[in-house]
Amino acid sequence: MSPTPTSMSDPTAPASYSWEATNEEVARRYGLPVESIVRFDLNTSPAAPAAVAELLAAGRFETSLSEYPPSDYRRLTAAAAAVYGVPADEILVGAGADEILDLVAKAFLGAGDRAVIPTPSYAMYRVLTEQRGASVSAVPRLGPDAGRAIDVDAVRSVARDAAVVWLCNPNNPTGRLEPAGQVERLLDDLAADAGSDGRRPPIVVLDEAYSEFVGRSLLELRAGYPRLVVVRTVSKAYALAGLRVGFAIAPRATLERIEPYRPPGSVSTVSVSIATAILGDRDALASNLQRVEQERARLAAGLEAAGWRPEPSVTNFLLVPFEDAAAAAAVAEHLLRAGLVPRTFPADHPLANSLRLTVRDRAQDDRLLAAAQRMESTR
Amino acid sequence: MSPTPTSMSDPTAPASYSWEATNEEVARRYGLPVESIVRFDLNTSPAAPAAVAELLAAGRFETSLSEYPPSDYRRLTAAAAAVYGVPADEILVGAGADEILDLVAKAFLGAGDRAVIPTPSYAMYRVLTEQRGASVSAVPRLGPDAGRAIDVDAVRSVARDAAVVWLCNPNNPTGRLEPAGQVERLLDDLAADAGSDGRRPPIVVLDEAYSEFVGRSLLELRAGYPRLVVVRTVSKAYALAGLRVGFAIAPRATLERIEPYRPPGSVSTVSVSIATAILGDRDALASNLQRVEQERARLAAGLEAAGWRPEPSVTNFLLVPFEDAAAAAAVAEHLLRAGLVPRTFPADHPLANSLRLTVRDRAQDDRLLAAAQRMESTR
Repeated sequence: MSPTPTSMSDPTAPASYSWEATNEEVARRYGLPVESIVRFDLNTSPAAPAAVAELLAAGRFETSLSEYPPSDYRRLTAAAAAVYGVPADEILVGAGADEILDLVAKAFLGAGDRAVIPTPSYAMYRVLTEQRGASVSAVPRLGPDAGRAIDVDAVRSVARDAAVVWLCNPNNPTGRLEPAGQVERLLDDLAADAGSDGRRPPIVVLDEAYSEFVGRSLLELRAGYPRLVVVRTVSKAYALAGLRVGFAIAPRATLERIEPYRPPGSVSTVSVSIATAILGDRDALASNLQRVEQERARLAAGLEAAGWRPEPSVTNFLLVPFEDAAAAAAVAEHLLRAGLVPRTFPADHPLANSLRLTVRDRAQDDRLLAAAQRMESTR
Repeated sequence: MSPTPTSMSDPTAPASYSWEATNEEVARRYGLPVESIVRFDLNTSPAAPAAVAELLAAGRFETSLSEYPPSDYRRLTAAAAAVYGVPADEILVGAGADEILDLVAKAFLGAGDRAVIPTPSYAMYRVLTEQRGASVSAVPRLGPDAGRAIDVDAVRSVARDAAVVWLCNPNNPTGRLEPAGQVERLLDDLAADAGSDGRRPPIVVLDEAYSEFVGRSLLELRAGYPRLVVVRTVSKAYALAGLRVGFAIAPRATLERIEPYRPPGSVSTVSVSIATAILGDRDALASNLQRVEQERARLAAGLEAAGWRPEPSVTNFLLVPFEDAAAAAAVAEHLLRAGLVPRTFPADHPLANSLRLTVRDRAQDDRLLAAAQRMESTR
């Protein structure tokens, strides 16, 4: 889930980050029926897998809901191990990828430490780093023509004495995959520098929340870089953000450093049982991936036809740049008036001139296309 | 959920605390069918409210499970506000009381700080304090004849420069309520000392996880002691430990310090919707409270008839002392061989000579009574 320092954020929310405006808040502000609101800002899927309703109705969970969830999440861990192709003891379960990121911060970041973030990226990396009393070295990504890729040499030099490097691949909010071999090269460089400096290499968090959409993962790199923590989730391609289930995958020596911070049971028993079943449902995943791929192409083509210029994306969202921040804000306001909630970026953000738009279903995307066409035809 | 540093704990678990052995682990170790295992160690209720199955089958959650939970937990917060009789803006939702305790530790404990714990008490207070790099001053509670009450004067003197005081009332694992007026007196003393020292009083966490069982709460004390954080949960009297829903209740100025650490959505949408409904179901709560009260009396009488000496309890568990730690360990082993899992305490714990036993349903408690009778008749 994204912390959203936008104009739609709750004015009473804390300074460090704001929660998204709820559907009710958007509806009230724009005088719309709440059921007309569509979230293009959260990179979720329009519908959960059909099997979920049956699983809920059957009510056969691992344990009674009066009991705590199984403290070892054994079946869920086994299901994830099978899907990701890793040993079960290299997996740790959390309440969404967000809890995994928090556990990593607890295990590896302390006051005075430093973390490196190729920016722009997922906003929680900075929040969690700073909440640990550690500082952030932001390394700007390359420009749109260079695929908004990580500047490997710059990250390498800044990471020389960093405790953690936060990577997101495919990257949110830019929607693209790192060029082949680049993450590998960065890890090799970090290991080489650590070797010559006589210290341990930094923990590298590789957040692969969107990796199913490209059908590729770099989790095998942990064999050569044991301080790699790969993050996966059922919130995106598995279309189950409401369950709050995510995973860390890391070699034992690294996972053992995280485990002491894992609460005994932060994931509800219902979520445990449903995620276990759906992770094994390859057809549900394949169907959602195919849907996203087709609909992303249709939505991108439609937005281009309306005069917008979405950047290439391998994910379930599109990054759309406008002339400047004022233009992006005007488009956002126009969409919000139609009940369509885009992801905006604050004025000091490198993407202040852009909106991020989730690929949703055909009917919802048609509303977005119609709004884009209306706006472009009147300006 | 209790971290359990017992002989049943997972040998691969981290040093800081161990998760409970699962039913499968107990069954395997003792050669028993897994469905024969009964948890007397987790202070849960034997069955969730009947309405839960209907709610799950109806499948009408606040949002689709493909979306994130509502970022403001508005309906759940409103339901909790109505039940607890507090303003909605003095409530913060977490993934069980355990997440609430973690958020409090994040907000108020840093490296070098000190926290006070009247011991024995819930084990997570120490774990969370030490994970923040803060230290614990443990203040022994009074003896069983003095109700195992907090030593108010000792806590007061040790808390003179503490950042946090962790209180649990009724206390786990001792099962009793503080004598009338004692928590009030402690808060008055802490405020007076802070006043004369010219500093802010410590944050006092008042964990009322078991307060429904006595039908009394001290949450009104927050009016006179604004740095009070009351903790509530649906895991105990509401019989919904599997949902992972807990609450902090505190005056705005204190809650505002905690809110920046609250993740945007750690509680699943299913849990949000079910907890919202069940919190409003006064009959379900009343029925469980009555059941516990009657069954606790029956279980205690039965154990006494078998020769055990359970201490008085106002909660859904009984603390049972034996001659010494070896005797307690022998009884635990005897119970485990029958598939009945007691809460044990490590050798260096002040309750090493005791077992904690949850009040469960009549049939399960009858198995416990039969095991106690068998053991006592053969020694």
